[in-house]
Amino acid sequence: MTITISAFAWVPPFAQGYVKDIRARWALAEAGLDYNLHLLSDGAQDQPDYRAWQPFGQVPAYRDETVELFESGAIVLHIASLSDALAPRSKQEAAQIQAWVIAALNSVEPKVENLILPAIFHAGEAWVSEFRPHAENLLALRLKSLSGWMKGRDWLVGRFTVADIIMATVLRGVQAEPVLQDHPDLVAYLDRCLARPAFKKALDAQLDTFTKNAP
Amino acid sequence: MTITISAFAWVPPFAQGYVKDIRARWALAEAGLDYNLHLLSDGAQDQPDYRAWQPFGQVPAYRDETVELFESGAIVLHIASLSDALAPRSKQEAAQIQAWVIAALNSVEPKVENLILPAIFHAGEAWVSEFRPHAENLLALRLKSLSGWMKGRDWLVGRFTVADIIMATVLRGVQAEPVLQDHPDLVAYLDRCLARPAFKKALDAQLDTFTKNAP
Repeated sequence: MTITISAFAWVPPFAQGYVKDIRARWALAEAGLDYNLHLLSDGAQDQPDYRAWQPFGQVPAYRDETVELFESGAIVLHIASLSDALAPRSKQEAAQIQAWVIAALNSVEPKVENLILPAIFHAGEAWVSEFRPHAENLLALRLKSLSGWMKGRDWLVGRFTVADIIMATVLRGVQAEPVLQDHPDLVAYLDRCLARPAFKKALDAQLDTFTKNAP
Repeated sequence: MTITISAFAWVPPFAQGYVKDIRARWALAEAGLDYNLHLLSDGAQDQPDYRAWQPFGQVPAYRDETVELFESGAIVLHIASLSDALAPRSKQEAAQIQAWVIAALNSVEPKVENLILPAIFHAGEAWVSEFRPHAENLLALRLKSLSGWMKGRDWLVGRFTVADIIMATVLRGVQAEPVLQDHPDLVAYLDRCLARPAFKKALDAQLDTFTKNAP
């Protein structure tokens, strides 16, 4: 099976290691599947041919011999379906994996982004510091709920699944923030996820792309 | 098949008709499936038994004889799998439906919520008006991309699917905003979605719940 994922040829240092193709790379590494890169540079993400594949001009987009799709959450769910290691073992497990992938992307990630993105993209503007405590409160509520779920659990759904890939890459955005550090169980969960050899492999692969294509 | 979804017994008027169980109700109406309600009142969403079903205390949660899950996006994807009318007709269609459900929830809905929620929950605070143009710009970019995708299309994926249910309920949050009105094609798409008899049925059902349980 020939698999291709899209990735940016290069991004500024603050984003290196955090671009969302790391999710697809991680799932592929867990599944033991090789892949080709479709690298985007010089505004290629805004060209009509790429928008026909990824309508929002983001990465990753994914293609194999059967399907073509976008959105990292949908991509890792598809990769799981190709893998003995990652495939759901029952309808209930499949439903829970899908629920947790979407929970990470819809119930947690927007709260993470509201905490960290304003300081990056709007540094110095007055509203940023006034907005921050609200953003922190909303994320704290979600992390408290997540911590409640993790009680007695090592992984979101019984064993390591692609839902953990999405949740770990979401939480990683606030790894150094007090709001996460307030939950030692979530810190331990994140450490457990990031200790997996497949994560290291995915991170190295993303960083290697940027090294090779540095301007 | 006995299907149960959770819903709030009552919410304040500004939220009536917009609570996310409308997504599950809509999909079930399209599928021609009946359902029971598990109604939450008096803080029931914070009780351990509900958190074991819906870890974040939100609605809807879903249960049938085979699976139990949460997150409206995952629930409508599951409902689609039960229905001759909504089930994907190929692997490519399934992948695209999943991609668009997640795109609506991760790439569009957070931008919609940042535009409308601050004015509701933080009315009068200084940062709200300063944040608004940034929120509007970010949503405008996503709507421009979505409009680009919709060119020549009536629905996100070939025919009406549960992806349209999620996208329509997301866009409905900014139905009256200039940022959506700037795209007549998206206004027409939203109108096309909301004209479906199953949407009307879902909306009436949600409003009926609140009428019956008004405090």
